[in-house]
Amino acid sequence: MLETPCELEALRSSIDNLDAALIHILAERFRCTRQVGELKARLQLPAADPAREEKQIERLRALATASNLDPDFAQKFLAFIIKEVIRHHDAVREQSGKA
Amino acid sequence: MLETPCELEALRSSIDNLDAALIHILAERFRCTRQVGELKARLQLPAADPAREEKQIERLRALATASNLDPDFAQKFLAFIIKEVIRHHDAVREQSGKA
Repeated sequence: MLETPCELEALRSSIDNLDAALIHILAERFRCTRQVGELKARLQLPAADPAREEKQIERLRALATASNLDPDFAQKFLAFIIKEVIRHHDAVREQSGKA
Repeated sequence: MLETPCELEALRSSIDNLDAALIHILAERFRCTRQVGELKARLQLPAADPAREEKQIERLRALATASNLDPDFAQKFLAFIIKEVIRHHDAVREQSGKA
């Protein structure tokens, strides 16, 4: 078996730390969106808010550009997350429909 | 136009802060993987490392479970990121092929 070069090990340690941070931040983000879902249901607000989503896309694209990340990737990333949020909301709705 | 309730505004502020953190951490992660790509090319190491990827999946699933995030989502998330990393590496290879 080939030995992993020291420099590669160091980069992988950074990547592992960054991944742990991403997972924990995502967990917290879904805690927030779960609360948003409950609040919207309670106040009978519509689930989707296209104006808010438009603003989020523009903001994340600008943040991505500023940090040298592909803005198209940032937008795809937001869409990926929002898809999961919608899946959560649907699951919650389905569950409360059954209750 | 409906006024946004205070509680919803507060949750959205948290989501916006978390999103900014995610974008910046992702930008740093791609800085690292770019260096990994260059290092692997220089040392003529294979681009893919299935054993490393297997370990990353297991680790992220465990971190997700511990932070109450769906481990399947964490795995999908890693796959989403790795797909982008491969796209970057291909672009770099193509560019150096042209040079």
